Amino acid sequence: MHGFVGVHIGAGSHSDFLTKDYKKLCRAACRKGSASLLSGGSALDAATTAAMVLEASPLTNAGHGSNLNINGNVEVDAGAMEGERLAFGGVGAVPGMCHPVLIASEICKMQYKSTVTPSGLMAPSLIVGSGAAEWAQVAGLTHALSSSLISEKARKQYNRNKRKLDAPRKEINTEMFQPVCPIVESKLDTVGVVAMDGGGRVSAVCSSGGIALKHPGRVGQAAIFGAGCWAENAGALGCNAHSESIAACTTGCGEYLVRTGLARELAHSVRCSEESAAIRLHSAFVEKFLESPLLQLVDESGRLAGTIVLRGIAPLHQVEFLWAHSTKSMCIGYMTATHGSKPKSHISRLPQGFAAGSKVIVEGISLDLNSTLV
Amino acid sequence: MHGFVGVHIGAGSHSDFLTKDYKKLCRAACRKGSASLLSGGSALDAATTAAMVLEASPLTNAGHGSNLNINGNVEVDAGAMEGERLAFGGVGAVPGMCHPVLIASEICKMQYKSTVTPSGLMAPSLIVGSGAAEWAQVAGLTHALSSSLISEKARKQYNRNKRKLDAPRKEINTEMFQPVCPIVESKLDTVGVVAMDGGGRVSAVCSSGGIALKHPGRVGQAAIFGAGCWAENAGALGCNAHSESIAACTTGCGEYLVRTGLARELAHSVRCSEESAAIRLHSAFVEKFLESPLLQLVDESGRLAGTIVLRGIAPLHQVEFLWAHSTKSMCIGYMTATHGSKPKSHISRLPQGFAAGSKVIVEGISLDLNSTLV
Repeated sequence: MHGFVGVHIGAGSHSDFLTKDYKKLCRAACRKGSASLLSGGSALDAATTAAMVLEASPLTNAGHGSNLNINGNVEVDAGAMEGERLAFGGVGAVPGMCHPVLIASEICKMQYKSTVTPSGLMAPSLIVGSGAAEWAQVAGLTHALSSSLISEKARKQYNRNKRKLDAPRKEINTEMFQPVCPIVESKLDTVGVVAMDGGGRVSAVCSSGGIALKHPGRVGQAAIFGAGCWAENAGALGCNAHSESIAACTTGCGEYLVRTGLARELAHSVRCSEESAAIRLHSAFVEKFLESPLLQLVDESGRLAGTIVLRGIAPLHQVEFLWAHSTKSMCIGYMTATHGSKPKSHISRLPQGFAAGSKVIVEGISLDLNSTLV
Repeated sequence: MHGFVGVHIGAGSHSDFLTKDYKKLCRAACRKGSASLLSGGSALDAATTAAMVLEASPLTNAGHGSNLNINGNVEVDAGAMEGERLAFGGVGAVPGMCHPVLIASEICKMQYKSTVTPSGLMAPSLIVGSGAAEWAQVAGLTHALSSSLISEKARKQYNRNKRKLDAPRKEINTEMFQPVCPIVESKLDTVGVVAMDGGGRVSAVCSSGGIALKHPGRVGQAAIFGAGCWAENAGALGCNAHSESIAACTTGCGEYLVRTGLARELAHSVRCSEESAAIRLHSAFVEKFLESPLLQLVDESGRLAGTIVLRGIAPLHQVEFLWAHSTKSMCIGYMTATHGSKPKSHISRLPQGFAAGSKVIVEGISLDLNSTLV
């Protein structure tokens, strides 16, 4: 069996103008992840490496190029989960860090090496603020740190947003802006990667700059266990009937993804049923998110989310890779870790006439990893 | 129907020497909460007011008197949930704050007033670090802030811990210390309150100084949705069959409470079954925590948690209040919001011969709130 990498660069509204760049970026991340697997890297290493490519790009709302908070600064969230030990590491609202996913990944590894640190202290699972940057420094992860995180585009968006926010309210035409927030333009293009190694072991990571003009210290789904990513090897939760490894990442309105614990819910939805995974993912997205009683306070137009879900059936050498979103569009990529294979990328769009937040679209592919065709 | 307040000041190892003080503190908090309900306060207001009494005491690991982190500073976590709209507010790793529960409670209220702030921005649900202190300042909650959070006792404990940590490892006798962490003495005495108003509406809040010598920025269960507290009015999750309001708080090893989402799991366990609530709570504590596959990496001796759970059956004017723990002891208090009623307090202890982390003990009371006897 060969490995697999699937990536996304957010569910939001991807402009036609940048389509080529978005897709190219997804493919570049896939190549890095696949190369990591081929050189013997774990699923966690592969997912982390691929996500770092996405963080480095100013196109995404992660790492360099993130949305700015209300004070004009970048603060980032990230999470990493490993499917064998169900270990998770997260960082939230961290300043000055272009690769938060690397820190999250190292915190995750520390968790599964031991639940106590070498000095006998309880290993933390979530570290926030400047404490996370301090942790990175001590761990020697200095290449995760950066002082230049603000892209030209993010700065311009911030200036436009601030002008709108500071303008007398009556002049504001709320229809001009994204429905997630009546006033502010906000990139929803957080990033996520799911990966599976040749043994069917999975990991998932995610990274996000959060919502534009957020309050300093606000933490979204990427840092929260079960919300931004999920990875679970076959049998890891103790149920031998499950011969399927599953992994998922979510993107969208962080507060709502945390309340609905969406990554875990959607990952679990595709497992072990006779129904097709796409049908189950669709039902779960509607039931656990669009129609969730936990979001009773949220307008339909704010119920914006996207996901990528990986289902690996090791004995059959099969992978299903699905993506679903209630936003206008979502951009994804995937690649098998096979010598000579090529990455694929795609922008999925809600059909014309459907309002964002009202419907969910599910697409996906099924691969036989032993076939030389992929 | 009358209201009800239940409090805890942690599951850990309560010394006989301080028993009187612990119990007195619980009763004082109950009186404040009950008075709030009697004067027309909401369940959220009552729970918050009661928790602030616990935070102010140096006896607890919350607010003033919290455990110190590795740098010798106090950083606190807190959460608040309201059962009608299932709204949640949390703060994590906040410096200089003696009443984080007040900030969490205000963030929770902001959530249920609107999912966007008056300026049209998405209302945050979790705010961490100095950003939370900044939020409190802007919201005018200056009495939540304090520069003197370090108790004499916490400072002494910190000094002892640091000496042990810095000593050559071979001199350390690990049996001397709490099993949660082989080296460090750590108060587990975080606090929590559940409250129900006369209409059967519930809220839950929690507050914690975190584990001793924690890394700066480490966030535990109190700040995390579903982990540290849960509150759900009858019918709030859209199931009309449920005529029971439920609320719960958890305390213990934060990382494990987050992974198991324990407050929500335990709250849900007592609802709608023909079996007694105590039996169901016991089973759920064992299944969802002590034997959870999510804690497969954790030694038995580290599986330390405690909970208080409130179940209110409005049509029958009945309340069940339960407490359960796998630690050596747990200290709780409760009181009905009735003129002339008196608070009760109690320290529950694991029977002699049982090791902490190996078993769970459940106790509780059932009250008819229309009876004048309570």
